[in-house]
Amino acid sequence: MIIMKNSSFKRIPEIPIFKDINLISGKAEIKSKNKLDLSLVIFNNYANVASVMTKSKTCATNISWLKKIKNFGKVRVLFVNSGNANAYTGKEGDKNLKKIINYLSRYFSCSEKSIIVSSTGVIGEQLPINKIMTFIPKILHKYSSLNYISKQCDWKKFATSIMTTDTFPKISFKKTKIGNKTINIIGVAKGSGMIAPNMATMLAFIFTDVLLPPNILRELLENVNEKSFNSITVDSDTSTNDMVSFFSTKNVDCKIKSINDKKLKYFKSDLEYLSKDLAKKIIFDGEGAKKLIQIEVTEAKNYKDAKKIAFSIANSPLVKTAIAGEDANWGRVIMAIGKSNVAIKQDKISLKFGENLIIQKGELKKNYSEKKITKYLRGKVIVIKVSLGIGDCSSTVWTCDLTKEYIAINADYRS
Amino acid sequence: MIIMKNSSFKRIPEIPIFKDINLISGKAEIKSKNKLDLSLVIFNNYANVASVMTKSKTCATNISWLKKIKNFGKVRVLFVNSGNANAYTGKEGDKNLKKIINYLSRYFSCSEKSIIVSSTGVIGEQLPINKIMTFIPKILHKYSSLNYISKQCDWKKFATSIMTTDTFPKISFKKTKIGNKTINIIGVAKGSGMIAPNMATMLAFIFTDVLLPPNILRELLENVNEKSFNSITVDSDTSTNDMVSFFSTKNVDCKIKSINDKKLKYFKSDLEYLSKDLAKKIIFDGEGAKKLIQIEVTEAKNYKDAKKIAFSIANSPLVKTAIAGEDANWGRVIMAIGKSNVAIKQDKISLKFGENLIIQKGELKKNYSEKKITKYLRGKVIVIKVSLGIGDCSSTVWTCDLTKEYIAINADYRS
Repeated sequence: MIIMKNSSFKRIPEIPIFKDINLISGKAEIKSKNKLDLSLVIFNNYANVASVMTKSKTCATNISWLKKIKNFGKVRVLFVNSGNANAYTGKEGDKNLKKIINYLSRYFSCSEKSIIVSSTGVIGEQLPINKIMTFIPKILHKYSSLNYISKQCDWKKFATSIMTTDTFPKISFKKTKIGNKTINIIGVAKGSGMIAPNMATMLAFIFTDVLLPPNILRELLENVNEKSFNSITVDSDTSTNDMVSFFSTKNVDCKIKSINDKKLKYFKSDLEYLSKDLAKKIIFDGEGAKKLIQIEVTEAKNYKDAKKIAFSIANSPLVKTAIAGEDANWGRVIMAIGKSNVAIKQDKISLKFGENLIIQKGELKKNYSEKKITKYLRGKVIVIKVSLGIGDCSSTVWTCDLTKEYIAINADYRS
Repeated sequence: MIIMKNSSFKRIPEIPIFKDINLISGKAEIKSKNKLDLSLVIFNNYANVASVMTKSKTCATNISWLKKIKNFGKVRVLFVNSGNANAYTGKEGDKNLKKIINYLSRYFSCSEKSIIVSSTGVIGEQLPINKIMTFIPKILHKYSSLNYISKQCDWKKFATSIMTTDTFPKISFKKTKIGNKTINIIGVAKGSGMIAPNMATMLAFIFTDVLLPPNILRELLENVNEKSFNSITVDSDTSTNDMVSFFSTKNVDCKIKSINDKKLKYFKSDLEYLSKDLAKKIIFDGEGAKKLIQIEVTEAKNYKDAKKIAFSIANSPLVKTAIAGEDANWGRVIMAIGKSNVAIKQDKISLKFGENLIIQKGELKKNYSEKKITKYLRGKVIVIKVSLGIGDCSSTVWTCDLTKEYIAINADYRS
């Protein structure tokens, strides 16, 4: 079953033809000579869009641009590059961003505001702008000469082109219903390090064909974001470039005027499912990760407390290394609850690893068997359940174990 | 020079005879058969005392006891054990603590309130109380039969007996002056993982022979603690058992009535020096640490902001792994500044590694040489200087690099 879950995270779903979206991915040699590192998502008929962005105070120049135009809500082209974040690159970085936006807006005869740029990679290095500015016309020219069938979207190539230290492309697909109409939702994400909440925590792009105005897109995105991309952590580090954008190609009109429209019921839950699935894919591919850890905090006084404790556990290096070592050192979970600074009652806490009860109302369970826990920890998916016994609010977050491979990857990321 | 610094951290200072203190250290087999793991510090004539303790909400039973008696200010015996934290051990843990306190108070015919217990080690396991209760009378009997010279304090044995994953005993000594009188200060500490501020972050015991009342001891301790033990982090995890106690054996009366007494000038600065020295020893011996990292944040709007940014850098796994890999990936420092959530101005920030200027007012220095930084990072002591350019407050904190050895130590701590 674990193997099944494992492979399901890596599985690339089959995706139907998505009208009015074209994907172009190529090798601009930003990352290296032979890796996909640049994509253009072209919305033939414009798309409605809403984005959420990193709260970092040293955010990248493209994020500043997005903040400026965030209420524009209409997009013609999404440009994504990996290998270079164009973050903390000063005035030259700003100029380089403008060059890309300016070129694309002229090529597609659209407002600069309808170009979205997304970047991921090393901070503090200038974009190889000459390479990029030579590459874009070339790839656009090649694209324009293709016939209709060759223009079909290659989602796997797109998902691959935005990877940095990711080990597999991350795509989720969900067919859902609004009223009696079939609606498609596709999500593509990247990110395996520098992942922490506040805010979107990585790059993710979600596309749907139902016509939704930007304000509804925004509300829907903010809601699911809180329980998916904002509920994961690999290493507690928040990126300068994180963003999630939600696009509506407007092909299917279901006359949605409000987020409270009852017709949206299944769409909402499927969107949440897809977002959580993408979020878990990111964690499953966390740098050096061998295990996916799900932390469920229940019976808290309020949601904020529950999430704070869940993240205190999820970000604890000592908890994460114990799980990496398959060591039943549950005392570290207790330590992490204690350091969160949330008011709790020690003698009300219960703790389970999977279905194995360890602590019941503050006392070690009489017939506690460390052997059983050690066996449980050999699995690939570890669930830690903390019940605080002082309220009825809960939060679930996901993280991964902390291994020597994380150090290996990050001690020498750039070489 | 680095080698000198290195060896100075591990050096055991020569300490003069400290009247009215006796140290007894032994092997109670809490940790293993042949390691020192229990010490009694006996104050023949009582000592005045003040302690600061962990803010953990899942603090150990001895900390709860200390919180109860914290204003007592008089101590006859300090009991310290390593190998078991007696934390989250429920009612049985409380009973075991009481057994120790009760026995010692009867043996020394003193109030239970004048017994201080300090524990460090695994969380959630019961103390091997039978072993301990058999061992204490034995060691006290042996001690009472010793002659005066054999009773001399063995500080190294004491410092060794409180170690867990520490690799060397940590002792600092300072001879100072109050008026024309010579005063001694001795500090002993342990702790190399689960180290983070809020609060005392490890065990440390500081002894002085000058007569100081408990309220002045407390004020002095709280002041130095903020800039030493509360300014270090190994892994952002806060322990359940942290404490620092400051003892006055009252042998030298300098008629100190107030913390503002001008005679205390040198004593204060020497106490601060000693506390910082102990704090740095802890970081130098951080689990798996190969490098000591000093982070200086200056020109902040206020002290709180400066410290928040300093700790955001110090706790960033991506910064710590880059330094472990001697990789000049300074962009991660910028990321860590950004994630701290402190309001800053990107174009006012300057960044130095040692004396090497990298960023000046938000722009990469023109002749920036990555080679130079890489060479600098080969050292054992790395200084990161961030100037925010928006105020005149500063904070310095210490951490260590994050290496594969940290994972090795913590993925399998108990076996």
